[in-house]
Amino acid sequence: MLNRVRVIGLGRAGRAIHDRLAEGGLTLTDEDPELVLLCVPDASIAEVAAGIPVGPWIAHVSGATMLSALDPHRRRFSVHPLQTLVRGRGAEQLDGAWAAISAETPEAMTEARDLAERLGLRSFEIADADRAIYHAAAVIGGNFLVTLHRAATELLESVGAPPEAIVPLMRRTIENGFELTGPIARGDTATVDAHLAALEARAPHLATMYRALAEATQR
Amino acid sequence: MLNRVRVIGLGRAGRAIHDRLAEGGLTLTDEDPELVLLCVPDASIAEVAAGIPVGPWIAHVSGATMLSALDPHRRRFSVHPLQTLVRGRGAEQLDGAWAAISAETPEAMTEARDLAERLGLRSFEIADADRAIYHAAAVIGGNFLVTLHRAATELLESVGAPPEAIVPLMRRTIENGFELTGPIARGDTATVDAHLAALEARAPHLATMYRALAEATQR
Repeated sequence: MLNRVRVIGLGRAGRAIHDRLAEGGLTLTDEDPELVLLCVPDASIAEVAAGIPVGPWIAHVSGATMLSALDPHRRRFSVHPLQTLVRGRGAEQLDGAWAAISAETPEAMTEARDLAERLGLRSFEIADADRAIYHAAAVIGGNFLVTLHRAATELLESVGAPPEAIVPLMRRTIENGFELTGPIARGDTATVDAHLAALEARAPHLATMYRALAEATQR
Repeated sequence: MLNRVRVIGLGRAGRAIHDRLAEGGLTLTDEDPELVLLCVPDASIAEVAAGIPVGPWIAHVSGATMLSALDPHRRRFSVHPLQTLVRGRGAEQLDGAWAAISAETPEAMTEARDLAERLGLRSFEIADADRAIYHAAAVIGGNFLVTLHRAATELLESVGAPPEAIVPLMRRTIENGFELTGPIARGDTATVDAHLAALEARAPHLATMYRALAEATQR
């Protein structure tokens, strides 16, 4: 149980994490921390870590970054909240989310699990070698959902339809446990071909994406 | 106001529509209907329409089908609920959803708007010429969201992570108004390249889809 924590970086993730630890009664301090928690951009982790005197535990909260970025520290781990965190919301953003934890020793794994729990996150282990696949899954589920929404709203606007009309469909698709309905579920390739022809004529920048997604859906 | 309605087809859409009209106190009857509402598969609309004696209003509820499929009828329109409808749920599935309506005369448009309202749907007009683009938007927002979920859960399972861990992220992305966070928002192309390399090595069937979505997101 690490009670004196120094959080470095108060961006979107750092702010939510800092506030949650404060709520939990931990001592957030830059003096003699037991854990230094790096919430800095991925590209800065190695440099910031290298500048911290070896001694306390050190951890990062990046989804993409290997533990070796925390060299030369050996007492190290990572906890990545599998959630989209935005400014203007607080620590409650962590509620209900999962976290990928990585560590190289049983002791470090215990600390990683403990930190995830204090943050209100359900944790699972990810090996460093699996990190890119894990993080690709996060991008596919989260970021690319934004991309689908942008594409759908752009197309709706282009035909004079209210762009917000797509949102109840997206919400319900999740509520219904991702049950596939619609033309591809019905094996209706003529409709898919008609969509592609229309996109190529009127929104060619979306045709490649549509084709790749239709092929993935059919598989 | 058309009060005697014959609903043909009690699949996923037909059942929800039938039940909502019944709740609204309409007379659902095969005898002397004022409106024949085709809730049959897209590929059957033209044939079923052709077999119905000309006289009453006729409408379909397909997203992809032109009004000409209702030939030789002239008193015709369409109302497409922009929602995923599943078995095992009822008319409440229509609540909060939008509908695309199409018609060729002011009188037909009035009937289309009226039917959408009775179904509990907010309506907007779509020209037949815009139908493929409109319906492509529906498939992108709804069906392809299922595809993203499948891809993400497959990748999570492949690295021993709980597949359900992606769902809070997907829900929150919608709740947060589709704000883009993550590597692409940060301009972190190294992470995107690492994802692609990992997918090509370990899940090559998802690499094309990932690349197309990453490109669409960056644009």
